[in-house]
Amino acid sequence: MSLKTTNEIDIVRANSSKINDVDFDNLSFGSVFTDHMLVCDFKEGQWGKPVIKPYEPFMIDPSAKVFHYGQAIFEGMKAYKDDNNDVWLFRPDENYIRFNKSAVRMAMPEVPENVFIDGLKAILEIEKNWVKKGLGNTLYIRPFMIAIGSGVIAQPSTQYRFMIILSPAKSYYSGEVKVIIAEHYSRAANGGIGAAKAAGNYSAQFYPQKLAQEKGFQQIIWTDDATHTKLEEAGTMNVFFRINDTLFTAPTSERILDGVTRKSLIDLAKREGINVEVRSVLVDELVAAAKDGSLKEIFGAGTAAVVSPIVGFQYQGDYFELPKIENSIALQLKDKLTKIQYKLAEDTFGWTVKV
Amino acid sequence: MSLKTTNEIDIVRANSSKINDVDFDNLSFGSVFTDHMLVCDFKEGQWGKPVIKPYEPFMIDPSAKVFHYGQAIFEGMKAYKDDNNDVWLFRPDENYIRFNKSAVRMAMPEVPENVFIDGLKAILEIEKNWVKKGLGNTLYIRPFMIAIGSGVIAQPSTQYRFMIILSPAKSYYSGEVKVIIAEHYSRAANGGIGAAKAAGNYSAQFYPQKLAQEKGFQQIIWTDDATHTKLEEAGTMNVFFRINDTLFTAPTSERILDGVTRKSLIDLAKREGINVEVRSVLVDELVAAAKDGSLKEIFGAGTAAVVSPIVGFQYQGDYFELPKIENSIALQLKDKLTKIQYKLAEDTFGWTVKV
Repeated sequence: MSLKTTNEIDIVRANSSKINDVDFDNLSFGSVFTDHMLVCDFKEGQWGKPVIKPYEPFMIDPSAKVFHYGQAIFEGMKAYKDDNNDVWLFRPDENYIRFNKSAVRMAMPEVPENVFIDGLKAILEIEKNWVKKGLGNTLYIRPFMIAIGSGVIAQPSTQYRFMIILSPAKSYYSGEVKVIIAEHYSRAANGGIGAAKAAGNYSAQFYPQKLAQEKGFQQIIWTDDATHTKLEEAGTMNVFFRINDTLFTAPTSERILDGVTRKSLIDLAKREGINVEVRSVLVDELVAAAKDGSLKEIFGAGTAAVVSPIVGFQYQGDYFELPKIENSIALQLKDKLTKIQYKLAEDTFGWTVKV
Repeated sequence: MSLKTTNEIDIVRANSSKINDVDFDNLSFGSVFTDHMLVCDFKEGQWGKPVIKPYEPFMIDPSAKVFHYGQAIFEGMKAYKDDNNDVWLFRPDENYIRFNKSAVRMAMPEVPENVFIDGLKAILEIEKNWVKKGLGNTLYIRPFMIAIGSGVIAQPSTQYRFMIILSPAKSYYSGEVKVIIAEHYSRAANGGIGAAKAAGNYSAQFYPQKLAQEKGFQQIIWTDDATHTKLEEAGTMNVFFRINDTLFTAPTSERILDGVTRKSLIDLAKREGINVEVRSVLVDELVAAAKDGSLKEIFGAGTAAVVSPIVGFQYQGDYFELPKIENSIALQLKDKLTKIQYKLAEDTFGWTVKV
């Protein structure tokens, strides 16, 4: 992909940097932001000039459509620093393409490459000191777009703001992850917006998630809303199941996000000679496999957590603990993927892009 | 219900009013706002003191959770002025209760009565000149709550802002409304948030709505997402069907909003001796009724439009025009409901509440 830089971005530098105030060893995910942000507004049918300027709050009208109708989408990406102090992105074209697919589904304007990709490159160039070396250290990248047009009528906005903000991060999840299989609540409808990274998909999960946590589970494995028989996603991640030595993951659909980590893990597993089947796993199959011992692993896959191993699941009141295994495919794949991202292993796929 | 006023609201008055600049005969729905807004923030586990102050934009962090995870809910209500210059609300307790149901489903804090109801009364007292006399003139009321806490991690916010903004309005829809029955897209999942007035439910409809408009239809009649056989809502409204002399409307559910206009029309129709059946109407039934002439009317019902008659529907490529009828139940009910709201007919239900 092309990452050409244009001279079409205005840059207003911060007077001073907050970087020395940040404890990079004790970062709470997504809570600290770098010195700058990228802002690009859409109005009167076209995108304006992107501006990189100091990170700061901005003014918005109380009637802005994002507040009332939830017209908002985002992406999650990461930048990595290798041992030579070079900064790398992982498959940014995938995020860019998906962002614009989300935009279409939410009736928002697509963001041009010179804003999204060149903007990303330009802000990372400025903030490269915020990307720390060492496995697990990343700069989490949050491109997003919100409807800033005013008016409380349920129609698409005519004005939008695209922004990129950056947050230094260590790993996303920690501790043992026990999950509960959704028997009532759902994250997506057929013909709905489940495949888009639309803001509303996430808050819709908060209440069921809270109920799960009250029962002692860290995550929910989502099932299809019509029958609750097909296993679809784990919290905000895609989900993989290892039964004997085969990895299963649901096909992408209108209900299931086309995750970059998911598709990379599939390719990586295939390269390693692991059998991968992309098909829906039924809840009954999972329970049977847990009972007969053929269920070896369950793990979530996503940009923030990379791979999140699950230690057990509950369904209809029964808890099934997964076996402790020696050769976890989840951890092997995580290791291989991470090494590619940090340029510690050869990138035979051409996934990494230098900033 | 109690509408007691407390002394617990701070009031900062605008220096001057915009009211003389507004052309009340040519209002675009939801685009003009009054001089003041009510703001009440939630943080550290509790609600602060509500403030009524001049309507104006406010500052918000780019990482505010409302932008990224869509934690946002709202209500739509109206104030009416009678011939004695008294201002009336219509069943505000219903909106208040539903608002807090939405809050629970979206993992947001419930808003106390002294903020929502007393706040409403206080701001309407200040803005009473914005409520104009005459049938069709209303002050549209938009209570809403957004997650203002910062941080790009998919968890409920710890900080929220509740606001009430007010917009003078005439009628919401105009012109002939032709609808298309949803065969692919959906507005709500089983176990999802369709029954909540959550922001994300509305933007999810924009793209299918746009496609419908490109085909010449003003609205979509939503069907259940699993089978697309049950008729559920019309655009952002509840929907009624008149077959012979019986009115049908779908029961409320997790997928269907418990509309105040919907339930008021049901009560009103029953009082008028009209047969009402609350059950799902199947698409096949509707098509059969259209073919044999027993389908007399279809209409949407909601706060903004009150009643929105539909002139025809398309399904699987066939367009069915509804008959022109003399005694429209839709228009009769609209007339009766509107007269209660404007205090032109006796309110035998006790629905109207004086501000």
